[in-house]
Amino acid sequence: MDINCDMGEGFGHWRLGETDDAALMPHITSANIATGFHAGDPSLMDATVALAVKHGVAIGAHPGFADLRGFGRRRMNAAPEEMVNDILYQLGALREFASRHGGTIAHVKPHGALYMELAQNEAMSRLLVRALRKVAPAAHLFCMDISVTARIAREEGQPVVREFFADRDYDNTGAIVFARQVGRADPLAMAERVVRACREGVVRTVEGDDRPIAFESICFHSDTPGSLGIAQALKPALVAAGIAVGAP
Amino acid sequence: MDINCDMGEGFGHWRLGETDDAALMPHITSANIATGFHAGDPSLMDATVALAVKHGVAIGAHPGFADLRGFGRRRMNAAPEEMVNDILYQLGALREFASRHGGTIAHVKPHGALYMELAQNEAMSRLLVRALRKVAPAAHLFCMDISVTARIAREEGQPVVREFFADRDYDNTGAIVFARQVGRADPLAMAERVVRACREGVVRTVEGDDRPIAFESICFHSDTPGSLGIAQALKPALVAAGIAVGAP
Amino acid sequence: MDINCDMGEGFGHWRLGETDDAALMPHITSANIATGFHAGDPSLMDATVALAVKHGVAIGAHPGFADLRGFGRRRMNAAPEEMVNDILYQLGALREFASRHGGTIAHVKPHGALYMELAQNEAMSRLLVRALRKVAPAAHLFCMDISVTARIAREEGQPVVREFFADRDYDNTGAIVFARQVGRADPLAMAERVVRACREGVVRTVEGDDRPIAFESICFHSDTPGSLGIAQALKPALVAAGIAVGAP
Amino acid sequence: MDINCDMGEGFGHWRLGETDDAALMPHITSANIATGFHAGDPSLMDATVALAVKHGVAIGAHPGFADLRGFGRRRMNAAPEEMVNDILYQLGALREFASRHGGTIAHVKPHGALYMELAQNEAMSRLLVRALRKVAPAAHLFCMDISVTARIAREEGQPVVREFFADRDYDNTGAIVFARQVGRADPLAMAERVVRACREGVVRTVEGDDRPIAFESICFHSDTPGSLGIAQALKPALVAAGIAVGAP
Repeated sequence: MDINCDMGEGFGHWRLGETDDAALMPHITSANIATGFHAGDPSLMDATVALAVKHGVAIGAHPGFADLRGFGRRRMNAAPEEMVNDILYQLGALREFASRHGGTIAHVKPHGALYMELAQNEAMSRLLVRALRKVAPAAHLFCMDISVTARIAREEGQPVVREFFADRDYDNTGAIVFARQVGRADPLAMAERVVRACREGVVRTVEGDDRPIAFESICFHSDTPGSLGIAQALKPALVAAGIAVGAP
Repeated sequence: MDINCDMGEGFGHWRLGETDDAALMPHITSANIATGFHAGDPSLMDATVALAVKHGVAIGAHPGFADLRGFGRRRMNAAPEEMVNDILYQLGALREFASRHGGTIAHVKPHGALYMELAQNEAMSRLLVRALRKVAPAAHLFCMDISVTARIAREEGQPVVREFFADRDYDNTGAIVFARQVGRADPLAMAERVVRACREGVVRTVEGDDRPIAFESICFHSDTPGSLGIAQALKPALVAAGIAVGAP
Repeated sequence: MDINCDMGEGFGHWRLGETDDAALMPHITSANIATGFHAGDPSLMDATVALAVKHGVAIGAHPGFADLRGFGRRRMNAAPEEMVNDILYQLGALREFASRHGGTIAHVKPHGALYMELAQNEAMSRLLVRALRKVAPAAHLFCMDISVTARIAREEGQPVVREFFADRDYDNTGAIVFARQVGRADPLAMAERVVRACREGVVRTVEGDDRPIAFESICFHSDTPGSLGIAQALKPALVAAGIAVGAP
Repeated sequence: MDINCDMGEGFGHWRLGETDDAALMPHITSANIATGFHAGDPSLMDATVALAVKHGVAIGAHPGFADLRGFGRRRMNAAPEEMVNDILYQLGALREFASRHGGTIAHVKPHGALYMELAQNEAMSRLLVRALRKVAPAAHLFCMDISVTARIAREEGQPVVREFFADRDYDNTGAIVFARQVGRADPLAMAERVVRACREGVVRTVEGDDRPIAFESICFHSDTPGSLGIAQALKPALVAAGIAVGAP
């Protein structure tokens, strides 16, 4: 089982809340590194890649919409060709830093509104997957089990890693619930929910039902309040449950 | 002898003057492709790389200061580490499109104020060359013969291509004269001056003297008025003079 | 009858096609001046305002989505409060240049995808109109007759100017047809269609029917191929038809 | 004596360190509100203006270089005309929000590298002051006593407010020392130094001498570590020393 987290989501002098990548990195196995469009800048990318290499954490590109102000969380109505070119641009930029530090691109995980757009946009997912088949055929494409992206990646032969969101709620459709304001969650309860999802393949939805969920990676967000506590709780809980933790 | 030209210097719906990359591409041997910071966007980079591959033109990264509005012609007081990371970011972005179209990065030529900054900034040139030794050891670094960049690249072992600017005037120090507003130059006179520089290794300066000049590539700018006429005149004039034309 | 046109839609060294504001300005009565988010920069705004003042043309703010690359033609999913603040920011920026040159803000016309968003977004139109009631109660809000914006502006008491698009086709719903690629239209035929719309209050749709249309201003776009010819044809045709031309 | 502080220096989801404008506002008399180029966005400007109005704090425009990533602290080599237009643009944008909330622009204080550039650039200061004479003749221009800006503003008749930096060290030339990394300073010692500067008109320099200093406003920075403690210490110390505190 993989543990992934968004990393390097600053920009110049700016930071998001209480994130502390250096503290989080030892507790994860895959780092989704922001690539400059919604967050991240070249120097921060360089430093974050170096940090990932140092900790043996798998390096992934985390491209987003070109929207610093909205942190990539505002959907933009861009053409699929245009968006895929934006993703390749960001992927290549990160790959150069990986190359500088002796690492490689292990995965690609689109960010925020772009992740959600791809999850339901067949044309955009198809174009992206075909481009990855060409430039990064071994890179895992991170996505949700129920997404169009997952289906198309399987059809085209691109390796897929499906995610379970440790710090988000699910509803009965299998979708993530954004409405609820997440307070500072109890890391142990969160870890317990994750272990259950790993073992039993189900998650308790906001409606109170158990819904099947399939995944190869657990995601939490560095800007979730209490993210360090979550990070520290997850791996020990998985190990204690006899689940091997490592990058895909 | 190489002929290089800046390419892909649009941005979204925007263009600079009368540039027409498709018309120019058949007449050059090295394309310096704008990488998104001073000009260029991912989709235009993709199209320009494809055009270069189609015409067998060598692909080079043309990184600049992060200044779209000033077209990378305004110096910014950025730290050397920061600027080199900006260059690597842009280099990687372009490399991804080269990879997509079956090409490789043949050279790196910084743009405008960044090119001039490197020409005199020893710390920045040193950092850049050392980074290139690591990530692109075979890429030619384009620069002026009299630049700090050329000296440092030779010291560190990075291959260098020195340029002669066909559409710029020189003064007796060997520097380019920006003051004079270039009118629509006579392409044949320009080609004749280039041929003389190739054969005799000298250029007539604005002061009226002949100054020695050493170079392996001839540069003209796609936004110089009459650039297509220049492009059409150069190669035939060189060939007629018995000078072989090709990428480094 | 007013004739309005988008003006100042460059950005730094960049231009859109063949636009020539200085040539167009004498032929219009209202200038919609780009305010920096989708096009325009402070120096161009200053120059364009000066040009409008010189020709006695009414000055209007032309705010857009913060999307230079997409020229404000890509819809962004931003909150109404956020967008209205973006519009006020741009309005104020232009007002400062108007003030410098002894002019005033006569109207506000949102650009591209923002204009279309407001046309159907009741919450955003309501917030915008209420903000204008406060900061610019005498400014005409330019919009389409069939838009939500027009209805809400009337409800709230903000002066409205409805537009007829001289260089766009209409369909039977009264909506503008974007699909058809506009070739270099015949300016005289276009002027004739405009005169008919003024006199008879109808426009021939792409379906071939006559549809009623109500407006106080005629719009054409400076980046429409042949825009200068359109500009030169419109006013004479209106005057010849006995229709007085002037800003609202 | 005035107490001024930079406010609204976030951007979208981003923040700088531990700044808390709502906590600081009650302790100052002039707010320099970031206007979107180096920091600040329209919605944050709107909220910050509302906060200033609520607390009866004077509203000032805090324009900077167009460099979000560098937080306006990297000098850009822009033409004076261009920079003055950038400043007017930002001034107008803020003025619109002031107008919305029933406030007015009381002062203009350029930010960071732009403030320093103006302090020594006669042509730029002259152009700025003349533009302000036209559009904001009553607005106080904040600057250092030793700056070119102060001299030119006096020559041209623009009201000037000179600043003393509570959280910066001075050297014997009267310049601010940037080299020393400011730790979390003792607010009481800082307040004592300010009171001495107010009463005796001198400041102890890093060389250990007393240097005369003239000012009408005390500045501290919201991103200085411990800024709230500084804010809370300043006004009581001034009042205890019999110095009246208020906006210019």
